[in-house]
Amino acid sequence: MTPQVIILNGGSSSGKSGIARCLQALLLPEAWLTFGADTLVDALPAGLRDSGSGGGIGFGADGSLSVGDTFRALDEAFAVGVAAMARAGARVVVDEVFLGGPASQDRWRRALDGLGALWVGVRCAPEVAAGRETARGDRMTGMAAAQAESVHRGVVYDLEVDTTHTESWECARIVAAHMSLM
Amino acid sequence: MTPQVIILNGGSSSGKSGIARCLQALLLPEAWLTFGADTLVDALPAGLRDSGSGGGIGFGADGSLSVGDTFRALDEAFAVGVAAMARAGARVVVDEVFLGGPASQDRWRRALDGLGALWVGVRCAPEVAAGRETARGDRMTGMAAAQAESVHRGVVYDLEVDTTHTESWECARIVAAHMSLM
Amino acid sequence: MTPQVIILNGGSSSGKSGIARCLQALLLPEAWLTFGADTLVDALPAGLRDSGSGGGIGFGADGSLSVGDTFRALDEAFAVGVAAMARAGARVVVDEVFLGGPASQDRWRRALDGLGALWVGVRCAPEVAAGRETARGDRMTGMAAAQAESVHRGVVYDLEVDTTHTESWECARIVAAHMSLM
Amino acid sequence: MTPQVIILNGGSSSGKSGIARCLQALLLPEAWLTFGADTLVDALPAGLRDSGSGGGIGFGADGSLSVGDTFRALDEAFAVGVAAMARAGARVVVDEVFLGGPASQDRWRRALDGLGALWVGVRCAPEVAAGRETARGDRMTGMAAAQAESVHRGVVYDLEVDTTHTESWECARIVAAHMSLM
Repeated sequence: MTPQVIILNGGSSSGKSGIARCLQALLLPEAWLTFGADTLVDALPAGLRDSGSGGGIGFGADGSLSVGDTFRALDEAFAVGVAAMARAGARVVVDEVFLGGPASQDRWRRALDGLGALWVGVRCAPEVAAGRETARGDRMTGMAAAQAESVHRGVVYDLEVDTTHTESWECARIVAAHMSLM
Repeated sequence: MTPQVIILNGGSSSGKSGIARCLQALLLPEAWLTFGADTLVDALPAGLRDSGSGGGIGFGADGSLSVGDTFRALDEAFAVGVAAMARAGARVVVDEVFLGGPASQDRWRRALDGLGALWVGVRCAPEVAAGRETARGDRMTGMAAAQAESVHRGVVYDLEVDTTHTESWECARIVAAHMSLM
Repeated sequence: MTPQVIILNGGSSSGKSGIARCLQALLLPEAWLTFGADTLVDALPAGLRDSGSGGGIGFGADGSLSVGDTFRALDEAFAVGVAAMARAGARVVVDEVFLGGPASQDRWRRALDGLGALWVGVRCAPEVAAGRETARGDRMTGMAAAQAESVHRGVVYDLEVDTTHTESWECARIVAAHMSLM
Repeated sequence: MTPQVIILNGGSSSGKSGIARCLQALLLPEAWLTFGADTLVDALPAGLRDSGSGGGIGFGADGSLSVGDTFRALDEAFAVGVAAMARAGARVVVDEVFLGGPASQDRWRRALDGLGALWVGVRCAPEVAAGRETARGDRMTGMAAAQAESVHRGVVYDLEVDTTHTESWECARIVAAHMSLM
């Protein structure tokens, strides 16, 4: 089934957003939207944006993330909403960080039930992702290294790309080529 | 019915986003998400972001906006998705610009069918909105004046607020007070 | 002497940046640049951006700011540099927060020695500034209230504007009108 | 002479800003500020930000840039100001695009007279820079390719780095290692 949703999963600074934007350019004139973990975090009340204990999402000084029950429920509803956009005809590249590993994937699987989905793992060597985090300068130090491997554990993909030595543009071409073979 | 979705409609620089963020703060511990026209525009492929003729959304030098068929279809799917988030339990403040006036409202009405919705008009005198557009410095000059009145024509509200002489925070309190009476 | 530098001093969320952008628009075709406290903070190494104790600038949970020796020295050099731009022919609107009150003003006075300077106080009632801080959603809660009055203590101005009930655009016109009379 | 100013010159999306931020992290506890072409563009009146003909800076649909007389004069004053910050004790990484090639370098040379300066060329293969421009999604398409080689013609460096196959972090280490040998 031709995918209606592409789910990119990878750690912070692994290059997911760059691949998503390159995919959008490559897949034109088909119009693919892109949403992701950052879309939801930006949509939160400010008071839940740095408060894992208060039910929201919290950023530890070491780059760790803690996630409260309120955030988890909103995250579930967000996935349901993105799936509904796809059922209504929009094609969507989802740019995600599976903090819960296979549990996060199950959440999206339930939401996307009946839709064609392409699961893509976006890997990057932890030390390279950490260097890119420093180069970006707008993320908590430590998130890249903390998430680089943990978000992939137990997750099953249709294909994986690795940005350690491959540009976002090339990774996007690999994903697009895979789609044309489906 | 207690609203699950609050729809703020107003022109560019009328103060909708500020009211949305103040509502989020006021309504805590209830966690309200906020999405809007900007969320969708940011999610578009770059190639559709300044191309009304190409089916996307185009920004005229005079502050006018042109909207193509592709954008219109995505916009419809976006509303369906936001409604699905609300049905899945998330409460949402929608921050919108009804470029199509009553047709835009009908689109949201269909999407929100069966949900409790509060329709709020956010007005601002055109010359004041234009001054705020200059003060922000990140919007096309002319959008505020072009949209200030046109987006309200034929639209029906539960209540209206006017930011010309009233702060966002006060407008948000008026909306929240109205909700507690429903 | 016609001013070559306009120094706007006020607390966080008092409306300085909006007035600066409106002044830039009003004073065209004269080309005025605008720099300020945010320019310097953005130019800092990330490691000094939230570390008052490490010599940089630190943001307390209550909206207070602590400033270390390293930051103070860079701040001094920054003022000297902005003054040198003005001596080289650029006109500059400085958008500042005098955390040190009169000591901050003295620092700028020394730097601007021999240049025409217009000192403008930008006031805003603390509760209104706090509401605008919530509406912006991108600043530490509490900074607006903490700075609203303290940054003006002991500072001497050529004129003052108050954004509590006056739009940025109007405040900018008042400043521009004052300049044409000098 | 130990450099007080590091000048990174390269085309759009060549990776200069990332190298600048990595240098800031590597050189701590020395506090290096970073300013660049974007600092000046952000400081311009909005009316000069897309108007090459009006004396400001203009962005062509093909990624070309046109620069007017007003912009050129402000650019000169900006360099003088940055140099004055360095003379006042701040160390500065300048992140620049020499649109005028050797003429741009001469402008900075005059401004930095008497200061220790390290001239670094930041190269990137045009097709790779173009892919990164697409991945960023926030720059005019075509600027990366248009500038990749032209900004280096006739410019003389102390050292050059190439981000085509080398991470920003590694490039920053090469620059820092060179400095420790001076």
